[in-house]
Amino acid sequence: MTAKAAKTDSGSRHRSGGRKARREASLRDDSPRIPYIQRKIGTFDILNEEGLSLIEENADTILKETGMEFVDDPEILEIFRDAGADVQGTRVRFEPGMCRTIVKATAPAEITQHARNPENSVRLGGANTVLAPGWGPPFVHDLDRGRRYGTLDDFHDLVKIHQTIPHLHHSGGIVCEPVDLPANKRHLDMLYAHIKYSDRAFFGALIGPERAADSIAMAKILFGDEFVENNCCLYTVSNTNAPLVLDSAMSGALKTYARHNQAVAVTPWTLAGAMSPCTVAGTLAQVLAEALAGLALVQLIRPGAPSLMGSFASTISMQSGAPTFGSPEGGKMVLAAGQLARRLGVPFHTVGALSASKIPDAQAEQEATYGLIMSILAGANFINHATGWLEGGLVLGYEKTMIDADLCGNVIAFAEGIDLSDNAQAMDAIREVGPASHFLGAVHTQNNFETAFYRPRTADANSFEQWEADGKLDAASRANKLWKEALASYEQPPLDPAIEEELQAYITKRKESMPDLFYT
Amino acid sequence: MTAKAAKTDSGSRHRSGGRKARREASLRDDSPRIPYIQRKIGTFDILNEEGLSLIEENADTILKETGMEFVDDPEILEIFRDAGADVQGTRVRFEPGMCRTIVKATAPAEITQHARNPENSVRLGGANTVLAPGWGPPFVHDLDRGRRYGTLDDFHDLVKIHQTIPHLHHSGGIVCEPVDLPANKRHLDMLYAHIKYSDRAFFGALIGPERAADSIAMAKILFGDEFVENNCCLYTVSNTNAPLVLDSAMSGALKTYARHNQAVAVTPWTLAGAMSPCTVAGTLAQVLAEALAGLALVQLIRPGAPSLMGSFASTISMQSGAPTFGSPEGGKMVLAAGQLARRLGVPFHTVGALSASKIPDAQAEQEATYGLIMSILAGANFINHATGWLEGGLVLGYEKTMIDADLCGNVIAFAEGIDLSDNAQAMDAIREVGPASHFLGAVHTQNNFETAFYRPRTADANSFEQWEADGKLDAASRANKLWKEALASYEQPPLDPAIEEELQAYITKRKESMPDLFYT
Repeated sequence: MTAKAAKTDSGSRHRSGGRKARREASLRDDSPRIPYIQRKIGTFDILNEEGLSLIEENADTILKETGMEFVDDPEILEIFRDAGADVQGTRVRFEPGMCRTIVKATAPAEITQHARNPENSVRLGGANTVLAPGWGPPFVHDLDRGRRYGTLDDFHDLVKIHQTIPHLHHSGGIVCEPVDLPANKRHLDMLYAHIKYSDRAFFGALIGPERAADSIAMAKILFGDEFVENNCCLYTVSNTNAPLVLDSAMSGALKTYARHNQAVAVTPWTLAGAMSPCTVAGTLAQVLAEALAGLALVQLIRPGAPSLMGSFASTISMQSGAPTFGSPEGGKMVLAAGQLARRLGVPFHTVGALSASKIPDAQAEQEATYGLIMSILAGANFINHATGWLEGGLVLGYEKTMIDADLCGNVIAFAEGIDLSDNAQAMDAIREVGPASHFLGAVHTQNNFETAFYRPRTADANSFEQWEADGKLDAASRANKLWKEALASYEQPPLDPAIEEELQAYITKRKESMPDLFYT
Repeated sequence: MTAKAAKTDSGSRHRSGGRKARREASLRDDSPRIPYIQRKIGTFDILNEEGLSLIEENADTILKETGMEFVDDPEILEIFRDAGADVQGTRVRFEPGMCRTIVKATAPAEITQHARNPENSVRLGGANTVLAPGWGPPFVHDLDRGRRYGTLDDFHDLVKIHQTIPHLHHSGGIVCEPVDLPANKRHLDMLYAHIKYSDRAFFGALIGPERAADSIAMAKILFGDEFVENNCCLYTVSNTNAPLVLDSAMSGALKTYARHNQAVAVTPWTLAGAMSPCTVAGTLAQVLAEALAGLALVQLIRPGAPSLMGSFASTISMQSGAPTFGSPEGGKMVLAAGQLARRLGVPFHTVGALSASKIPDAQAEQEATYGLIMSILAGANFINHATGWLEGGLVLGYEKTMIDADLCGNVIAFAEGIDLSDNAQAMDAIREVGPASHFLGAVHTQNNFETAFYRPRTADANSFEQWEADGKLDAASRANKLWKEALASYEQPPLDPAIEEELQAYITKRKESMPDLFYT
């Protein structure tokens, strides 16, 4: 099948490699077995109806009284003016309920983001949760090479490692910044790497309408023009510039993706105490206000376009101003934000295994575990940074990735809820074993041996003596071996050579059209 | 005030040191400010009515068909026979609902355990949660001295360190085994250390009626005879010997504490796959069956005696048989067990920051954090091992204690729920700051500076450069400094010298009455 022939069959073209290859891929040990989480455990609702209404009223008050700034983007001002908002200069104010009404009218409750391997397409919304790797760090860290700037080689290695991790459902976006490449061109190499080295869904470029357009063009080469216009094939985050600003770099991308029917997670990013009030309730109202304005914008641009309410709300050290993660206030904010998104009727995007730690130590996992569990309990539909984050997002850790991957597997198993089948009730096993014996040799135990318990890979449950004989390794050292094993065992998912060629040609042409810029 | 004089005033005698000392103590920086958690966040209910009824029916079936063994304790067989149970040999079987009816008829829903400083008395049941330190390890670990057998010096140091931690609410019990002391006498030294070096509530000795009697005798010296008989001053755990056995070492202590109106947490201890079926639902039914029989026994011995339903249910590695902690199955079991206890109408006891890790590394905190959060969400009223556990409970870690203490502080702040006061809504702050600015200098931020966010002590949120300048320490190394600071800053809470003398005399007499035994 050539690229030309494929263009006539865009609906199935994203099944690149054909049925046989897919069948073979699905038989490989490293092929992901779970395309996404289907939660059977409900959500943990921290606010009651009264509390939620209060936050919603406060968000409405903020949008009416203070409004939001849309900087350097006159088109947005026009869009909002036409919709009936009060536009004065770059400030836009909204009557109470206006944004909510617009969003509720057309925003879809669930979204399918397509992957080139359709077995990896993910469903966002409802009781579904997608776990994506770390995103955005300019630095990388591993035990052998220490902390250093990320390169394209790191980017490739990380995409490959992520692809081998069955507990991740998405290839992500900027898994690290390849800072050895020009800042204005590296998005092309990043997109190419996700398409080539992973067969999972991935992010479009985040900043600016040009890079968004490149993302869409490359998605069209992969999936076919018509398929992309009618289906969600890219995912992007549009961060507000809290408090209450959307700048043109973000709004340009937002508009481009929305017009082309690609998913936008409108995600106020706030560090409470700096970018929002130093209280949970105050931050929640601001987050909801910013999200409402951004989501309304998406729906005004293209009614029915896939969009998510995002929240990335953490805290700062009031002593040093440094961002802090895994905080109780962060936990409360994500739980409540999830409730607010569900009331708005849109999928909920948030963040996962964050940490301010510099290394994959006890602090890193205390913070990461706290954060990821809270996001799962919040009913998040997309959890960005589910693995790898260190140093408040400045660093992507190779070892931390593997340790967090174990945590992802844990929450996946947790989200299954409690099996109440006859086999799980195990009444015959209890009858068989009786008092003062043990279940190790019971028929029931033997029958359930393989699947009874989730098995993390970086944890060591052996005796002290065995652990000592194994070299007294800490979790990070075991993780070091595991990411190397992952890289060594990685197999590239087959991709139609014609698509690869077309992508390369596009990238070459685009690179030649611009000078190299090392700072954006 | 002398000991003699105090005896005439037993009701207030546990306020040892008098009002002035108490007032002074409350002004000290290290005095605990929070006597226990009053949860404002509800619980996370993982099973619905149908699932809970199913587990309850299965527990009833186990108690009727298989029953439970009560070994070497004919008195218990008599008690159950008199109550109408089917007793054959040492096997006791119960008609469906029998145990539940007995428990619901007289077991109190809430319990106050008194501390010698009444400001530290804890309330168990309802929305209250008490965090207690690690319990039972024969070994201790710190970065300087490595892993070694615990001694009385370690025991003293750990009680002192725990006393300085504001996020712990209880002095615990066997904070480590002082294995340098005779096994049959060391409970006396442990009780004395809790009474002398801490002014919080503490455990009675766990094993055997003699040690339970010693615990009660020493409590009576501290609190006064009549006060102890009428109030809960000791807390103990009575572990079943899963599956479905209560041995005489445990039942002897259980009977003694129940007769003297002291709290017994009837706690099936199971490692699913070995001591219970390798499924969550099967383990839950067995746990409930064992707890029901034990709780019914307590209530038959002394109707109205304080008792808790406990659950310590974890998993094993099906490959090696090693106990595993922080597992998703463990999380599900504690959440459901909490629901079952609430339906039974008794407070719920469980476990916290467990880990199989040998050192305070990423594994240790991933497992510990997972476990403690689940227990908080389960609505546990008493969380044993909220700090310090390593190596599946074989080791009490000094550094892990400090790292887990941060986690305790985190869940305490989390359990406060979301403040919805006018100050927390911060609407004036948002009006004041407006778009495109920041909240760092806002009046609202300045007014809330001190209390806005929870501050962990072992976490480092500084920049990489600052962290590097500070010596590139991991969380464990920072924790190492903190426990030393805690020991250095420790101040002994004043205790009436007459009480101390009387306790010493009791201990001397008891020790002289027995030969030294180094194995129990």
